[in-house]
Amino acid sequence: MERSTFESVYKKILPFWSEISTDDKDYICEHSVTLTYPKGTNIHAGNECSGVIFVITGSLRLYIMSEEGKDITLYRLHAGDMCMLSASCVLQTITFDVFLDAEEESECYVISGPAFSAVSERNPAVKIFALESAVSRFSDVMWVMQQILFMGIDKRLAIFLSDEVVRTGSDTIALTHEQIAKYMGSAREVVSRMLKYFSNEGIVEVSRKGVKILNKKQLRKLTL
Amino acid sequence: MERSTFESVYKKILPFWSEISTDDKDYICEHSVTLTYPKGTNIHAGNECSGVIFVITGSLRLYIMSEEGKDITLYRLHAGDMCMLSASCVLQTITFDVFLDAEEESECYVISGPAFSAVSERNPAVKIFALESAVSRFSDVMWVMQQILFMGIDKRLAIFLSDEVVRTGSDTIALTHEQIAKYMGSAREVVSRMLKYFSNEGIVEVSRKGVKILNKKQLRKLTL
Repeated sequence: MERSTFESVYKKILPFWSEISTDDKDYICEHSVTLTYPKGTNIHAGNECSGVIFVITGSLRLYIMSEEGKDITLYRLHAGDMCMLSASCVLQTITFDVFLDAEEESECYVISGPAFSAVSERNPAVKIFALESAVSRFSDVMWVMQQILFMGIDKRLAIFLSDEVVRTGSDTIALTHEQIAKYMGSAREVVSRMLKYFSNEGIVEVSRKGVKILNKKQLRKLTL
Repeated sequence: MERSTFESVYKKILPFWSEISTDDKDYICEHSVTLTYPKGTNIHAGNECSGVIFVITGSLRLYIMSEEGKDITLYRLHAGDMCMLSASCVLQTITFDVFLDAEEESECYVISGPAFSAVSERNPAVKIFALESAVSRFSDVMWVMQQILFMGIDKRLAIFLSDEVVRTGSDTIALTHEQIAKYMGSAREVVSRMLKYFSNEGIVEVSRKGVKILNKKQLRKLTL
């Protein structure tokens, strides 16, 4: 892979890029690889150091898991997003285990953890960027937790469906109940039951193609 | 309050103290106050900027709250601990609301948020310290969440009791069931039921004085 290919992406995503030396830029690009993960691949598990991951195409799901294998989605990464929690050697104060899967075939650029770490030790701006990325994810995660711990499933499902409509620009959410449950950290049965309720209320129409939103106004009301 | 009083504490707790200028040290001390919060005071709520708080004596409880007023303890702060999440103006990537209460009468040193923020803008080491504090709390919070979401109440209660024995150095935990439930983000009924179960198993003895640990080995087994 050409250095310029990596650089064109890093220049856009990494706010410190203009502040580091040409040597450090070279070092990062030399320690970058392009990886294409088939759908369903587990990219990162536990507290290994898988490096700093940039999503070029596709989508990744970051989650935590219990010993019994139950998992809760913390967030998903799409094109243009970066994952810092997968680089435990960069952020040594992160001591919890996260898992990262490719939800669909995903092309990623990956900077080696030790290489990124070395550059961050030489450049406070890089270290600050890495920490700020983690802290802003902290806020995302707290939001998920509050939804799970405090909110009713109706409100959570309504928020999920509304977000999907905004994200995909389509009124039909082409996901199975199983997939929706996984994203929400809930059970398929619970999601199916609530979708049936929504359907009875004329808010959605459930078919083999997915979930179609019929009454956006009503759905939005449920998210409040 | 004398400058030297603040400095003697900051020198110990703040690893960047030796790296900042005398002017910045003065600036921080001039923008510090000593506050004594009576038991039960709400020190911080939502996303206001209450400053960076150092606990000198007493203990504080940090928690999140639902709209309905249900709360979950994220962690507690004791003498020598510092709270960075109460300074939302320092950590602008923290966008979730936390609440902080004095569990008992607590003496604290508080550095004004804007003053700390100004010094952190001039000194990358200060900014890195603030972010690292937040990220390490991220790990604490994830642990609490995993306990709540994934673990059985027996395991959680056993861990809480074991931790209290270690922290207080006493075999008797002088807390009401209500207080234990609050610390654990659970309900009093649930805690009472589980304590009764532990008591039947000869692990603890419950009296008006609190919870006395009778069988530490058995308790430890439950935490695994």
